[in-house]
Amino acid sequence: MRRMMLSAAALALTACASAPQSMAPDTAPVAARTIPEIMASIPASDWADLDPENTLYLELPSGRVVIELAPDYAPNHVANIKALAREGFFDAAAVVRVQENYVAQWGRPEDAPAHAFQNGRATLPAEFDRPITDDLPFVRLPDRDAYADEVGFSGNFPVARGNGRAWLAHCYAMVGAGRDVAADSGGGGELYVTIGNAPRNLDLNVTLVGRVVSGIEHLTTLKRGTGDLGFYETAAERTPIRTMRVAADVPPAERTALQALRTDSASFAELVEARRNRRDEWYLHPAGAIGLCNVPLPVRGAP
Amino acid sequence: MRRMMLSAAALALTACASAPQSMAPDTAPVAARTIPEIMASIPASDWADLDPENTLYLELPSGRVVIELAPDYAPNHVANIKALAREGFFDAAAVVRVQENYVAQWGRPEDAPAHAFQNGRATLPAEFDRPITDDLPFVRLPDRDAYADEVGFSGNFPVARGNGRAWLAHCYAMVGAGRDVAADSGGGGELYVTIGNAPRNLDLNVTLVGRVVSGIEHLTTLKRGTGDLGFYETAAERTPIRTMRVAADVPPAERTALQALRTDSASFAELVEARRNRRDEWYLHPAGAIGLCNVPLPVRGAP
Repeated sequence: MRRMMLSAAALALTACASAPQSMAPDTAPVAARTIPEIMASIPASDWADLDPENTLYLELPSGRVVIELAPDYAPNHVANIKALAREGFFDAAAVVRVQENYVAQWGRPEDAPAHAFQNGRATLPAEFDRPITDDLPFVRLPDRDAYADEVGFSGNFPVARGNGRAWLAHCYAMVGAGRDVAADSGGGGELYVTIGNAPRNLDLNVTLVGRVVSGIEHLTTLKRGTGDLGFYETAAERTPIRTMRVAADVPPAERTALQALRTDSASFAELVEARRNRRDEWYLHPAGAIGLCNVPLPVRGAP
Repeated sequence: MRRMMLSAAALALTACASAPQSMAPDTAPVAARTIPEIMASIPASDWADLDPENTLYLELPSGRVVIELAPDYAPNHVANIKALAREGFFDAAAVVRVQENYVAQWGRPEDAPAHAFQNGRATLPAEFDRPITDDLPFVRLPDRDAYADEVGFSGNFPVARGNGRAWLAHCYAMVGAGRDVAADSGGGGELYVTIGNAPRNLDLNVTLVGRVVSGIEHLTTLKRGTGDLGFYETAAERTPIRTMRVAADVPPAERTALQALRTDSASFAELVEARRNRRDEWYLHPAGAIGLCNVPLPVRGAP
């Protein structure tokens, strides 16, 4: 059971834009490679720089959290969060809530001075999902999902699809815009990151805006709040935010240069297959499948 | 969309021991209750005390972690962990590894004095799964799972089943016995708890022995290790363990008296259904399904 051959049929990931396109090669089966072997030989062309204009740096006392924004899925929220960052909205922000196995959340506390909105807005209409269009990338995962009929990857994000619509999925490290009861009561001024088992029940209920690609441990290790929903009960418990900036606004020498593995690359398809059927010596039972939120979206420092 | 009626058909959980037994009532549809409404009216008989003989107290400097053991699934490991605890094996233990979105692990560090084994053993044959028998409780969840054909709850634990076998599932907070490459190289002297998105790929690869029912935040907030696999690189980074004891060995006045909701109760079935289709005012899109590891297993202080 430990060593399995990788058949062409096992390359089950399907990359497509407008129409599904099989990635199965015409060649004969080849010996399956382990994850370290695959990672060590990824061609440079399969890695892509994060776009500084769609990257945020959340600066906490313990270090930097890098967030990649998803303008394909939440264009108005992404634009608004960038506008808010650029007008200093988050300079008076703090981590106000950390709920075990759920979320860490930051924004301007209720006792912060009122923000003088310029280009940014306090609230926006929800962007829970979007139409599937020909130009929207999608690489399908072949495995079952409890919440959606079809799941996979779109650009650097985990997504679900159904009824002609596509939406970002609440996997670990995804970042969303908190809201009140009304669908249009969020806007990005209050953000959260998921820090436990993927709360997929939130899909289609909150606007997801991106994902943490680096530094999530600065948020996951914070003291849990003891108030309702994990809110801190005192101001002293909050973690102050030094700044949250758009990477493009940061001098290049101070940026964290990262690259993400293209999810439409052959390397990514091979990695996913190697995770569906682990061939590392330690694994005795290859699962034969993988959950959407168990697929890591690889990131590395730019070489 | 916000308020839905709960039809009889929606009560899809099926409780069974030997044979599936429908829980759908014969009555007409009734108004669905929210989770707080259900929680507030659970009859006392639906709660069951944790068994002190199968409960561990892991004492960390920041507080107590309560672990419920699963003798139905890992009888030899459970017996061995209790024997090791009773002969002081864990008194020289420490948290030696915390890997982001994966596990926190504790055991005797390599530089600890050798343990003089008495009743406990260093290693045991694996207990990855067990046969399905007539007396093994099982409440089936009706929703899809990426890793197994059938999932649900057995006693106080999330489980998966297939081919006449049943096994504990690697949900958040599950506790397992670390091992080396050989299947029989673990035994419970090195334990881990899952602290990220459920690593279900570990199912059938490691012996799970129980779950953390209280105090997991004492482990999830620990500094992440910077060595390979999240191991700490220096002894100073470790969190020392004061003791790990069987609750039955602790004077009653010093115990943490907890009760778990019976997963074969009508209250649990109604709670699961209320989570599959959230009717709280905040939810705009009821998911219509739930992932195995998104179902909380309720615990409360004994009244």
